[in-house]
Amino acid sequence: MRSLIYLMGGIILGVCTQRYILPQTDNSQTSVGNHGDDRGEQNAPCRQDDNPPTDFPDPNLRDEGSSVWCKGSNHTDRTCKFQNLCYSPGEDDFIFFHGPQSVLNGIPGNLEPALLDMTSVRDHNSLYFTYVDLEAAHLDYFDNVDFYHGDNVIFNRFNPDNLMHVLHDDLLPLFTTLSQITSSDEHLFNLDTRIILMEGWKPGEYKDLYQLFSDVPVVLKSNLKSTESPGNNLICFRNAFLGLSKSTVWYDYGFTKPQGRVANVKTTATEIRQFTKFVEKRLGIVSDDSRAEEFIVILSRKINRLLLNEGELMFALIQQFGLKVMSLSVETHAIREQIELVSKASVLIGVHGSLMSLSMFLRESAVVIEIFPYAVNPEKYTPYKTMATITGMNLVYRAWRNTKVENTVTHPENPPHLGGIQHLSDDEQEVITQSKDVPVHQCCSDPQWLYRIYQDTVVDIGEFIETLKSAFSERTLESGNTSVNLYPSKVKNVTCNLTRTPEDYSNLPSEEIWDNPALALSWIPPWNVKYLTYDSIKYEVWIQESGRSDYSAWVVSVTEYKFTKHIKQDTSYNAWVRCILNDTIVGPFAGAVVCS
Amino acid sequence: MRSLIYLMGGIILGVCTQRYILPQTDNSQTSVGNHGDDRGEQNAPCRQDDNPPTDFPDPNLRDEGSSVWCKGSNHTDRTCKFQNLCYSPGEDDFIFFHGPQSVLNGIPGNLEPALLDMTSVRDHNSLYFTYVDLEAAHLDYFDNVDFYHGDNVIFNRFNPDNLMHVLHDDLLPLFTTLSQITSSDEHLFNLDTRIILMEGWKPGEYKDLYQLFSDVPVVLKSNLKSTESPGNNLICFRNAFLGLSKSTVWYDYGFTKPQGRVANVKTTATEIRQFTKFVEKRLGIVSDDSRAEEFIVILSRKINRLLLNEGELMFALIQQFGLKVMSLSVETHAIREQIELVSKASVLIGVHGSLMSLSMFLRESAVVIEIFPYAVNPEKYTPYKTMATITGMNLVYRAWRNTKVENTVTHPENPPHLGGIQHLSDDEQEVITQSKDVPVHQCCSDPQWLYRIYQDTVVDIGEFIETLKSAFSERTLESGNTSVNLYPSKVKNVTCNLTRTPEDYSNLPSEEIWDNPALALSWIPPWNVKYLTYDSIKYEVWIQESGRSDYSAWVVSVTEYKFTKHIKQDTSYNAWVRCILNDTIVGPFAGAVVCS
Repeated sequence: MRSLIYLMGGIILGVCTQRYILPQTDNSQTSVGNHGDDRGEQNAPCRQDDNPPTDFPDPNLRDEGSSVWCKGSNHTDRTCKFQNLCYSPGEDDFIFFHGPQSVLNGIPGNLEPALLDMTSVRDHNSLYFTYVDLEAAHLDYFDNVDFYHGDNVIFNRFNPDNLMHVLHDDLLPLFTTLSQITSSDEHLFNLDTRIILMEGWKPGEYKDLYQLFSDVPVVLKSNLKSTESPGNNLICFRNAFLGLSKSTVWYDYGFTKPQGRVANVKTTATEIRQFTKFVEKRLGIVSDDSRAEEFIVILSRKINRLLLNEGELMFALIQQFGLKVMSLSVETHAIREQIELVSKASVLIGVHGSLMSLSMFLRESAVVIEIFPYAVNPEKYTPYKTMATITGMNLVYRAWRNTKVENTVTHPENPPHLGGIQHLSDDEQEVITQSKDVPVHQCCSDPQWLYRIYQDTVVDIGEFIETLKSAFSERTLESGNTSVNLYPSKVKNVTCNLTRTPEDYSNLPSEEIWDNPALALSWIPPWNVKYLTYDSIKYEVWIQESGRSDYSAWVVSVTEYKFTKHIKQDTSYNAWVRCILNDTIVGPFAGAVVCS
Repeated sequence: MRSLIYLMGGIILGVCTQRYILPQTDNSQTSVGNHGDDRGEQNAPCRQDDNPPTDFPDPNLRDEGSSVWCKGSNHTDRTCKFQNLCYSPGEDDFIFFHGPQSVLNGIPGNLEPALLDMTSVRDHNSLYFTYVDLEAAHLDYFDNVDFYHGDNVIFNRFNPDNLMHVLHDDLLPLFTTLSQITSSDEHLFNLDTRIILMEGWKPGEYKDLYQLFSDVPVVLKSNLKSTESPGNNLICFRNAFLGLSKSTVWYDYGFTKPQGRVANVKTTATEIRQFTKFVEKRLGIVSDDSRAEEFIVILSRKINRLLLNEGELMFALIQQFGLKVMSLSVETHAIREQIELVSKASVLIGVHGSLMSLSMFLRESAVVIEIFPYAVNPEKYTPYKTMATITGMNLVYRAWRNTKVENTVTHPENPPHLGGIQHLSDDEQEVITQSKDVPVHQCCSDPQWLYRIYQDTVVDIGEFIETLKSAFSERTLESGNTSVNLYPSKVKNVTCNLTRTPEDYSNLPSEEIWDNPALALSWIPPWNVKYLTYDSIKYEVWIQESGRSDYSAWVVSVTEYKFTKHIKQDTSYNAWVRCILNDTIVGPFAGAVVCS
């Protein structure tokens, strides 16, 4: 008994049992139970009855097969759009069904080590995407084929329990990817795109954040398992986009080298602000641009990496700055409240840790102070500093580091992943406890790093107040909109004449005029400069004798000029003109004109 | 008076006059007349009243500005999606309005020589796309801002009067581009995507072919000129895709080197067949797979490059092969009829020329015979041969060349672009008329090439019949579906144990057993091989001593094996296993297992 179920918007619109291919004799209409998504199933007529797919192209997967179109030159920058990509929950593999209409466009000859990355984290070999080959005719061997129609973005969450990873690795890349590959008249992207999370983890505490990016229920890998004969079912995606944008990634977690900002941070404050604004809107957070109520938020960890004198610190801040101080913790605030509070705060204070990623929600001109426990060098751990200091974020970032060993409390007795070191030899323990700076290490389980980062800290109030004062003094309350260089457009109407009687020489004897051929060039200024503001406008002119590869270059501040130097009679020349503003902002060349 | 008109699906749904930005005191509702598209305007309420855009993000272009997301590393392979890209008909330039929410993602630092190509023809410097910078605030200076909502694909037709260029440069790349960037549940792509043709030519005789790719009226550059104060209007595109796919291009026209097939033809018969099938369906041509009526089509040129004994040839073909012979010409058949006739023919015969591109519509196992006039070498002019011989097209291609000078009629008296040579010196004319083979040349106005290609030809019937007979003998009536290599998937459940008592040695003295440590590896075959057909299945095993960079490789034909060679006791090893079918089809490695 084969059945084909169409999942629309993640909600099963009814269960339509039909023979999938090559009908057998059994015609009974058997319900095959609750499949896929658990958001509720209705006894509505199934899509096929309701709104039959047209026969162009043939909706039958066996006739069509899968198709794929990819862009990118290697697996780390490749993105692909699949049509009719299937997934086998039993084998935990994606399947490409090679059929008579299968297109493979932009697929490399060698799929090793992978077709593409399933995450924005570059080249992580446990998060590769490949597919398994079958012929479309092999569909006969599968019992049930369920279809997710519409557009589906499929990726792996990198670490869905950690807010920094959620925001930096998943949600901002997802936001950019959706902006790139989908479109909408009302929104930045199409909110009907379904999000498929394939890493296989539980929903996690941040699942609702993923849901913000789609009006269609988010699908987890576990949702793809049909209850019935899971070993021989297929889930197919009509349109599947794979390959998250990596363009917004600013931090390298150090799997193959010490962690740090990526070599060439490409993301912009505008992208991050659009992202946070989107999240806030979708969470129903009303932004309040009036700066009436300035307040400080302290991220308060309750389990480990404690601020031992948090109360004293709060009191001192109130006294010193006359501002309200709010304490925020994951134990007392839901993620929506965390974001709302931070989005309205003037100052965010917290110990190094993933919650500090909330600083991207701070409004412009806010202050971030990141506290580092004893022996942890702020310059080596900069995921939040990197983000806060992107041009245009207009945040004031300060690291405050505990330099007093008497103000730190270590936890050698902890389990190793929380900084315990009792599993190590006495010598190793001695090295660790005596060190004043964690040496360079790779992610993610260096015992010395864990020992130090899980220390509790008594904040030196005097030092801290000075740090915050210095940060306040640097705030600029104007908007941090980065000024964009606006380039002059091409000059137009370039005309060019070779003349032997330049007006300038009109009172010279005629022989001399004859000896002074001139190239008369004129043009119209770039049309956009009338809107631009600038201090100087000049034009660069290139003149090349036809057939030669060298040229002479001139800068003039007029829009017509007669060039005489090196100009010979009865010779033809090519000329190019471009506009330069303020001596540095160079516009494009207008296409060559030929003067003869 | 500023007005904002929303164009939906190319049809103005009403004219909604409103102040665009910063309202002045004038509140009158003035109709601003007929703008943009000439397909008809209704007095329906405008979109804004009907279905107001939500306020997220702000629909006001001045607040949003333009945005762009690009992929690709240089202008020849870059594709971009713009939001709110505008065009000024007065200046004939696209404009990027830099606003507070403008995203520039994937834009290179230097836009020279261009952001991207407006055509699938690589790096043609008259078909570059760049935009002009303005600030969003400069919108105040424009009178009317008309909006094309929805998705828009914008490109330049390369040569819309020439069918080969239309199909190869524009429509097949458009088909692939739409498949890549849009999606649909029913079709290969979204037919609601609007096509904007920006090269500025007249509609041309093939405009209807472009219209096949969209259910929304195609827009020409001339449609973008508003009737009112054209100098100061803007046409904006909510979502604009630029950069045609170049992946299907198979021919280089020889602008910078002699013409010929591109170095690495990537397009596949499946893509071309999908394309022609799409065109036929959209033209309402019912494909008839029964091979009941075999017939020959002769492409009959009426003006120049004539077959002087066309009637005799047709008669000979009928007599020799007993097949119906139809004559097809642009003078007697509309493009739809041309395509329909060719799509049902068994043989297509024609002189080298753009109409020969119709051969892509031939059904499988059909024969193409391309006739070359005297002194024109078929090996140098292969746009149709290249296409016909793509693996899987399953066409039989033959060139027939007139080698008899007495059978050619030259036209030295023609204008130069039709092969006339009387504008040349006597010596030059002599060289040309005496030559027996046109020397290598670049596109597009070599007089010797034009002289020869515009000859009329008397076909040698005997030779021609032999050519066609030979072609017929090569026809294979089976489908030309190229067999795809299906790769075995990863082996699963790789387990690995170091053992000192291999069963094989159980009857040896115990010391020897002790001296023979073994690595026992086992795995489960790739799950997809049960569906595949193959002659042999083997496994390649790599074994590496931990910490070393060299490894030993083994091929076995079982799924468990005890390796003893070079295996030392108390040593740990890494092992990898992959499946190989027929000694050549190599599957991916399963991830390393550690054996200790």
